[in-house]
Amino acid sequence: MEYASKLLENAVYEVSQLPGIGKRTALRLVLHILKQPEQQTVSLAEALIKLRTEINFCKSCYNISDTDLCEICSNSKRDTSVVCVVEDIRDVMAIENTSQYQGLYHVLGGKISPMEGIGPHDLNISPLINKVKEGEVKELIFALSSTMEGDTTNFYIYKQLEGMQVTTSTIARGIAVGDELEYADEVTLGRSILNRVPFENSMKAN
Amino acid sequence: MEYASKLLENAVYEVSQLPGIGKRTALRLVLHILKQPEQQTVSLAEALIKLRTEINFCKSCYNISDTDLCEICSNSKRDTSVVCVVEDIRDVMAIENTSQYQGLYHVLGGKISPMEGIGPHDLNISPLINKVKEGEVKELIFALSSTMEGDTTNFYIYKQLEGMQVTTSTIARGIAVGDELEYADEVTLGRSILNRVPFENSMKAN
Repeated sequence: MEYASKLLENAVYEVSQLPGIGKRTALRLVLHILKQPEQQTVSLAEALIKLRTEINFCKSCYNISDTDLCEICSNSKRDTSVVCVVEDIRDVMAIENTSQYQGLYHVLGGKISPMEGIGPHDLNISPLINKVKEGEVKELIFALSSTMEGDTTNFYIYKQLEGMQVTTSTIARGIAVGDELEYADEVTLGRSILNRVPFENSMKAN
Repeated sequence: MEYASKLLENAVYEVSQLPGIGKRTALRLVLHILKQPEQQTVSLAEALIKLRTEINFCKSCYNISDTDLCEICSNSKRDTSVVCVVEDIRDVMAIENTSQYQGLYHVLGGKISPMEGIGPHDLNISPLINKVKEGEVKELIFALSSTMEGDTTNFYIYKQLEGMQVTTSTIARGIAVGDELEYADEVTLGRSILNRVPFENSMKAN
């Protein structure tokens, strides 16, 4: 595509570097920005720069935070003996939205993926192991996605924990609430039968 | 959704103001930005601010331009007696990509749309009428989309031109090249038969 202006071309290029945004969408977004009041563009640009330069990560769980210790880690009502291991902060937000979990989190920042060149040392795994070594954690809940990379990461952490006094669990896989059995895939349905729970438990969760 | 950080919340809010981007997509984009080098965020922010504050519009055709007169208007090889009326600069880019048109453009900046509160005076219509009054333009080609708003805009301009020495035409509507007749809608197919062209012309265009 040929652009009538270098400024336009440059803005389209920068926007199209974002994931899932091609040149056409970038052009549409940039033309929209041109029609808006100047102050709105300045706010957008400032919010992004401020975020990128001033953001903090919680020293304990690596969740995003404005303070040294995030709101969850510094909340004295949370159960510090249970730690839920998640991939990124979106997972923390999703689990927090359920209001079902009162323990702490540990954000790995990704999954082990040799294909993408992500090894154990690129993730926040050793701080997690150290946390367990210190002895306060009684249970680790693995809540990574059940892909090859997620399973690899779970297994790597599990191996590192050998000989330590900690229980490990993974979140339950099964038929989603409200789903029809006939449309479920075999692996999920199989696991949901093997890992069935007492009927009383299923009533408590509602 | 609850965010762990005000900076994050603010950035997500600003990004979700863009058209077609909801809160979830905004969060995904913002988390991607957090993983990128700081310089990339600065480039993006600077490109947007520079675009919004420094962009020029061509004084003649209202196309985006880095100079007072855009490259097309200042190109002496273009035919200044034909002006193609389009909605926005994306249409200019699309027509330029075909390499079939050697005249000039006039960018209206939108279509008349009472529903959205856009009247003739919000668009660059009077400069177009003035251009025609000056007498150099022999033909106006309406290339707006064939919606209610596009037709209204075409008709409004047409009425304004009454008594002036200028030919008006619209781009041909018909079956797209490569399309099957059986899937075409009736209006399009009907028009393509009424406005059939000599066979020799269709060979020239390829």
